[in-house]
Amino acid sequence: MMNVSIIAGGAGFIGCNLLPMLAQEGRQLVILDNLSRGQERYLGSAKSIAHDRIHFFNTDLSDRSATLNVFKWAKGLGFVDEVWHLAANSDIPAGVIDPMVDLKDTFLTTFEILNAMKECDIRSIHFASSSAIYGDLGSTLLHEGIGPLLPISNYGAMKLASEAQISAAAENFLERANIFRFPNVVGTPATHGVILDFINKLYKNDNVLNVLGNGTQQKSYLHVSDLVNALLLIRSKSIKGNVEVVNVGPIDEGITVKSIAEKVVANISPNAQIIYGEGGKGWVGDVPKFTYSTERLQSYGWLPKLNSAQAIERAINEISLELAK
Amino acid sequence: MMNVSIIAGGAGFIGCNLLPMLAQEGRQLVILDNLSRGQERYLGSAKSIAHDRIHFFNTDLSDRSATLNVFKWAKGLGFVDEVWHLAANSDIPAGVIDPMVDLKDTFLTTFEILNAMKECDIRSIHFASSSAIYGDLGSTLLHEGIGPLLPISNYGAMKLASEAQISAAAENFLERANIFRFPNVVGTPATHGVILDFINKLYKNDNVLNVLGNGTQQKSYLHVSDLVNALLLIRSKSIKGNVEVVNVGPIDEGITVKSIAEKVVANISPNAQIIYGEGGKGWVGDVPKFTYSTERLQSYGWLPKLNSAQAIERAINEISLELAK
Repeated sequence: MMNVSIIAGGAGFIGCNLLPMLAQEGRQLVILDNLSRGQERYLGSAKSIAHDRIHFFNTDLSDRSATLNVFKWAKGLGFVDEVWHLAANSDIPAGVIDPMVDLKDTFLTTFEILNAMKECDIRSIHFASSSAIYGDLGSTLLHEGIGPLLPISNYGAMKLASEAQISAAAENFLERANIFRFPNVVGTPATHGVILDFINKLYKNDNVLNVLGNGTQQKSYLHVSDLVNALLLIRSKSIKGNVEVVNVGPIDEGITVKSIAEKVVANISPNAQIIYGEGGKGWVGDVPKFTYSTERLQSYGWLPKLNSAQAIERAINEISLELAK
Repeated sequence: MMNVSIIAGGAGFIGCNLLPMLAQEGRQLVILDNLSRGQERYLGSAKSIAHDRIHFFNTDLSDRSATLNVFKWAKGLGFVDEVWHLAANSDIPAGVIDPMVDLKDTFLTTFEILNAMKECDIRSIHFASSSAIYGDLGSTLLHEGIGPLLPISNYGAMKLASEAQISAAAENFLERANIFRFPNVVGTPATHGVILDFINKLYKNDNVLNVLGNGTQQKSYLHVSDLVNALLLIRSKSIKGNVEVVNVGPIDEGITVKSIAEKVVANISPNAQIIYGEGGKGWVGDVPKFTYSTERLQSYGWLPKLNSAQAIERAINEISLELAK
């Protein structure tokens, strides 16, 4: 019997970088995505590996019966031994303005995925959580063992709610739950994020780049290729019966928004003037600086190939090439 | 202008012990409750203090417009300077069987209360969270600074989700948020809980008491009178602008289910035989033992009047008297 992976939100940025790796394992891949940010054409590289094993469904994962129906269909393909849950609203400010956005797309997706897994007796989940669950703890080192967890965006809140619901499901019926707390991830296809914003602004006006906040916000960035390697490593090594919570991120202090702005300008429009806003936050819910512990991840033997600055540089090249197509 | 308190879930066990204290402050009290466990007659002692300042609405707090309408109405009474959020599903096993129960009654209540607060420009919330957000950490001392938070019931998950959503709202519009992590609370009017279960079993059959689990589960219990004092203390001392997270509980190691069973039997039916089940858990989602740090609460100058064993004894007397009425 063939192994089957279900990938929720699989037509988005992370999904389409993960899919080819899963396809190479000879699996059937069932992808559900509402295409809010994702695109069906992003499945191209996975399809080039195994066209007949890639099955795409345009599904709202917060819709109970629609989600359950696809999960049931997937069982017909073979043994569904894992669900990757990568679906979420990725527009944090939108969720701050209207919490319903994150309730529906960031949390109810989790809720309905777990419901469908229980109904279909699927017992293993890999979940894309976020560093946003930590909130703004200033200079405190963010490792998996700290609390209280006080997210400052509804996005972070609904990621934490998702972790909690998965944890409760692990007590009830799941056999394996890997919770990955993602940092900022960069690469292509770019669906959102600071680099894409900056490049798009310069495409509209190549004389000036207006930056939200004063540019001192400092964050770590991981290239999506490193991220996917980390996910697959934990998946191969985590222990059945455990809920594994792992920060995923580079091993460095991060890079400032100012530095990113300068790199984008140098690449796209070297003569543009950079104009900064006020305050240390880009928007309500933005975490201006954090120091992220990846000790646990490293204990699995993982090392990133690129640090934050290198990841940003590579992503700027990739995204500008992608946009030039 | 008169101060107004909104008390969500105010006709339940905690609410009706808190209301008289608030009524004594000369406030208007607006109580919303769906009466799933609460009862309108529980408002009696508050009404005896200030009949014309107690306003009850039978409202499903997960219903957006119904909740918002009552909040708007409350603003007509004066300055709404606080919301007490005590509403939740309190039947943990029911929420394990059907996660929708806790989604709706434990989390969406929070979600809609916050929505109504934002709409009505009400900026202070006191929230009844739970020790269940910690999950089962074995013998680890449960203090507010530990993680990861891996609840093992949907009830605990949706309490943690509520904390997170309140935290995000604090970044957005709240000025004050007190998050109280309740332990097991005992007293009257008893709407649920181990003592009521045991007494009811003995009322049905006074020869035998069947206990879920092997009786070794050990938990701390706080008497509701001590709890209310703790809430009012934190409310008076917490700092504007902060999200304050405080474990509330007695200062002892707790008491075993076996000991509670024996005390109930001694009180109700001294000749009854106690028959224990198997395993260290009473049900899926039950946390068999935890050690609860109340250091933070004590730093506010708080001391409980009763320890766990005394709280249980007093509650057994109170509940048996209440049932005999």
